Amino acid sequence: MQQLIYMLDLFGVAIFAISGSLAAGKKQMDLFGVVVLATVTALGGGTVRDMILDLGPAFWVTNPTYLIVVVIAAIATFMLVRIIDLHPKALVIADAVGLAVFTIIGTEKALNADVSGFICVVMGVTTGVFGGMIRDILAGEIPLILQKEIYATASLCGAIVFYLIYSVLGLREPAVIISFAITFCLRLAAIKWDISLPRLSPNEKQK
Amino acid sequence: MQQLIYMLDLFGVAIFAISGSLAAGKKQMDLFGVVVLATVTALGGGTVRDMILDLGPAFWVTNPTYLIVVVIAAIATFMLVRIIDLHPKALVIADAVGLAVFTIIGTEKALNADVSGFICVVMGVTTGVFGGMIRDILAGEIPLILQKEIYATASLCGAIVFYLIYSVLGLREPAVIISFAITFCLRLAAIKWDISLPRLSPNEKQK
Amino acid sequence: MQQLIYMLDLFGVAIFAISGSLAAGKKQMDLFGVVVLATVTALGGGTVRDMILDLGPAFWVTNPTYLIVVVIAAIATFMLVRIIDLHPKALVIADAVGLAVFTIIGTEKALNADVSGFICVVMGVTTGVFGGMIRDILAGEIPLILQKEIYATASLCGAIVFYLIYSVLGLREPAVIISFAITFCLRLAAIKWDISLPRLSPNEKQK
Repeated sequence: MQQLIYMLDLFGVAIFAISGSLAAGKKQMDLFGVVVLATVTALGGGTVRDMILDLGPAFWVTNPTYLIVVVIAAIATFMLVRIIDLHPKALVIADAVGLAVFTIIGTEKALNADVSGFICVVMGVTTGVFGGMIRDILAGEIPLILQKEIYATASLCGAIVFYLIYSVLGLREPAVIISFAITFCLRLAAIKWDISLPRLSPNEKQK
Repeated sequence: MQQLIYMLDLFGVAIFAISGSLAAGKKQMDLFGVVVLATVTALGGGTVRDMILDLGPAFWVTNPTYLIVVVIAAIATFMLVRIIDLHPKALVIADAVGLAVFTIIGTEKALNADVSGFICVVMGVTTGVFGGMIRDILAGEIPLILQKEIYATASLCGAIVFYLIYSVLGLREPAVIISFAITFCLRLAAIKWDISLPRLSPNEKQK
Repeated sequence: MQQLIYMLDLFGVAIFAISGSLAAGKKQMDLFGVVVLATVTALGGGTVRDMILDLGPAFWVTNPTYLIVVVIAAIATFMLVRIIDLHPKALVIADAVGLAVFTIIGTEKALNADVSGFICVVMGVTTGVFGGMIRDILAGEIPLILQKEIYATASLCGAIVFYLIYSVLGLREPAVIISFAITFCLRLAAIKWDISLPRLSPNEKQK
C-alpha cells in the first residue's frame, strides 16, 4: 500500500508538472520558465505545508526523485507538446488522480505531525491546491481554483473522510481507498457539472 | 491586558478575514475562493513572520481558534454581503484596529525571539501588512499598500514606539497603549488625508 | 577570500535593491512600496532558500547589515532617480555581478547543509533568481526571467561549476573564481544575444 501511494504520488507530481508546463507554454515562456512553473505546480503545495508545519527541509530536499520527475516531465512536455496531440480529457482525469493523492498525503503528513484534525484537513487541501494557485499567479492569472469551487471542495471532502476513517477508526487502507474515491469522483462529476452549468456572470470573471 | 490583546487579536483576524472576503467577492470568486482569500489576508502576515524567524509551526497551527474565526467571518461575509449594507467607514476603522494590534503582536513576538530591535520593527510591520499584500496578489491586483504610503507607515511608527517603550524602558502596558494609539490615529488621519489630497498621476497608477 | 565574497554579497544586495526600487518607481509606488520591493528583490531568494532548507531564521535576521544596505539603497534610489542619469548598462553589469555572487552563496549554503548535489544547484539558482521573480509578481508583471532563458541558465551553469569544483575536487577558491566568471560572462553574452535575436512571437508575449 505504501508503495502504491508513493507511485501515485510520483504520478501526481508528474501530472502537475505537465499542467504547469502547459500553463507556461501558453504564456510563451522559454524552457527555464517551463521548468520553474512545473516545479512550483508540482511541489509548491507540499513545500508550503512543510513550512507551515515546520517539518524540517521541504520533502523534495531529502528525496530528489521528486525534482527529477518534475524536470523530466517538464522537458518532455516542452519538446513533445507540438508533436503529440494530448487528449484534454486525459489530462483532466490524471489531474484528478493527482489531487486525490496529494490530499491524502498532505492530511497524513499533518496527522503524523500531531496537530488537530481541523489543521490536518486544512493541510490536506493546502497540499492539493496550493501548487496550482502559485502556478496561476506566476502565469499572471487570478488563480482558477479560487473561482471554481468544486476543485478544492473535492479535496476538502477527501481530506475530511481520510481523517475521520484513519484517525477516528484507525483504519488506514480503507481511509486511503475511500478518500481517493471521493476526491476523484467528486472532481470528475464537477467537470461534467461545470460544462453543463454556466456561471452567473461569465464576462465579468476575467475582469 | 494579555486577555485584552488576545481579544483584539481575534478581532483583527476577523476584520482582515472580512476584508479578504470582500476582495474575493469583487472578483466573482466562489465560497472556496472567499475562504482562501480571507485566510491569507488574516493569517498571512503572521505566518510569514513565523517562517522568517523560524518560530516552529505557524501560530494558527497550535491554536485553531484563529482559523475558526477566519472561516466563520468569511462564510458570514459571503452570505450577508448582499443583505447587510455595511458602512464603508466601519470597515476602515475596524481595519485600523487590526493593523494596530497586529503590529504590536508581531513586534512582541520578534522581541521574545531575541532578535535585534531593527528586525523587531520589521517583523511588526510584516505582521501588519503582508496579509493584505498576498490578498491583492491573489486577487490579481498590484498590492494597494505599496501605493499608499501611510498604511504601512502607521504600522512602522507603532512598531518603533512599542519597541522603544517596551524594550528600552521595560514598560509593557504603556507600550501597548501608546503604540496602539499611534498606529490607529495615524491610519485614520491618513484616510482623511488621502481623501483630500489627490495623487500626482492617478491615471497612470493602475497601468 | 571570505571577506571578498561578503563584500560582493553586500554589493549584490545593494544592486538587487536598486533594481527592485526602479521597478517600484515605474509602477508609481511610494517610498514604502519602493523599500518593500527593494527588500524582496534583494533578500527574497535567500529567504526562500533558508526556508526550504530549514536553516533557522532567515540569514538577514541574525545579520541586520543586509537589511540596512537594502533600506539605504532603496531610499537613495528613490531620492536620486530623478537627479542622476544612471547608465542602463551600468545596472545590467552590476546585476550580473549580483547574480553570480548570489548563485555561489546559495550553492555553498546548501552544500554546508549537507544535501545532495542536485539540490545544491537548485538552491544556487533559487538564491539567484527568486528575488527577481517575487519583485515582478508584486509589480503586477509576469516574471521576466521566466521568459528570458539565459538569465537563469547563466546562474544554473555557475552553480553546477561551483558544485563540481568545490565538492568533487575540494578546491574552494578556484570554484568561486571560475563559477563567478562563467555566470557573469554568460549573462553579459546573453544580453548581447538578446538584443540581436528577436523572439519568435514578441507581440503575444505580454498577452
